[in-house]
Amino acid sequence: MKESATIHDIMTRVSVRQFTDAPVSDSDIETILRAGMAAPSAMNKQPWQFYVITNDALRRKLSENFSNAVYASSSPLLIVPCADLTKTIEGEGEAYWQQDLSAATENILLAAHALGLGAVWCGIYPISERVARIRPILDLPDTLIPFGIICIGHTESAPAPKDKWNPEALHFIR
Amino acid sequence: MKESATIHDIMTRVSVRQFTDAPVSDSDIETILRAGMAAPSAMNKQPWQFYVITNDALRRKLSENFSNAVYASSSPLLIVPCADLTKTIEGEGEAYWQQDLSAATENILLAAHALGLGAVWCGIYPISERVARIRPILDLPDTLIPFGIICIGHTESAPAPKDKWNPEALHFIR
Repeated sequence: MKESATIHDIMTRVSVRQFTDAPVSDSDIETILRAGMAAPSAMNKQPWQFYVITNDALRRKLSENFSNAVYASSSPLLIVPCADLTKTIEGEGEAYWQQDLSAATENILLAAHALGLGAVWCGIYPISERVARIRPILDLPDTLIPFGIICIGHTESAPAPKDKWNPEALHFIR
Repeated sequence: MKESATIHDIMTRVSVRQFTDAPVSDSDIETILRAGMAAPSAMNKQPWQFYVITNDALRRKLSENFSNAVYASSSPLLIVPCADLTKTIEGEGEAYWQQDLSAATENILLAAHALGLGAVWCGIYPISERVARIRPILDLPDTLIPFGIICIGHTESAPAPKDKWNPEALHFIR
């Protein structure tokens, strides 16, 4: 493969579930959020809002109400991307927000990795029980849907990258 | 923001809709596909297959049957990521495949950009009319859902990156 720091970061990004106590700097938080918002979205609607949580009590409350509590509780920074239903496409295309939020989340994971941080994407939507638990904790209006929780922090030892290359999933039509 | 080639590529990636006739090299195609497969997926299911199309007649046929025909027809490489329903999570979590495929697609777009190529993500799913048109052209079994068409190629002049930074979409809870 061609040498490229970006390709390298894409290939070596892993889910990190253990974090040190060190906080993520404001500068890194802004970079990560800028990366998320740089994602493509259907018709460029940018149908998202981001809850950025470093508050101790709220991090604990989210962790206690979330199935992936173990690593959420140890992470100094939680980002909860939410769908903003006031900005979605009308009709059948409304559901494109899931794709838009996913692209933003992947950008956030890659940016965190590029900054030397660890991160893991924990799904909320479309599991209705998770959506129902998280919504009141963040006091979300009806127009916002909590999409996922991204745990971010410094890590002492990231797991080795997985080799997920699977030629059997490829169909070449030349 | 910290200097990082990856952050830079994330921030400067744009949707490219005009391509030269130059083919994408086999080496670049493999790099792009490896990047796609390196994406995270819920429970690491990797519920995807990728149709990789350089064939002239098929590219033309896909373009004619697709609303974004103008740029699809000029692109020397089309990748159609498909959901593999034999690999999805059971129950309410089945729909996570949309998030998995979106993360893979974003990785593909970033990898193409990092390689100096242009690319654009055209949505198929969940627009039922598009799914119905594309499915027979690729002769997809019922277990595969065409998710989108990614047009990739060399470009003479990419558009300027959009500034999508929107502090109003941020909620800090410190």
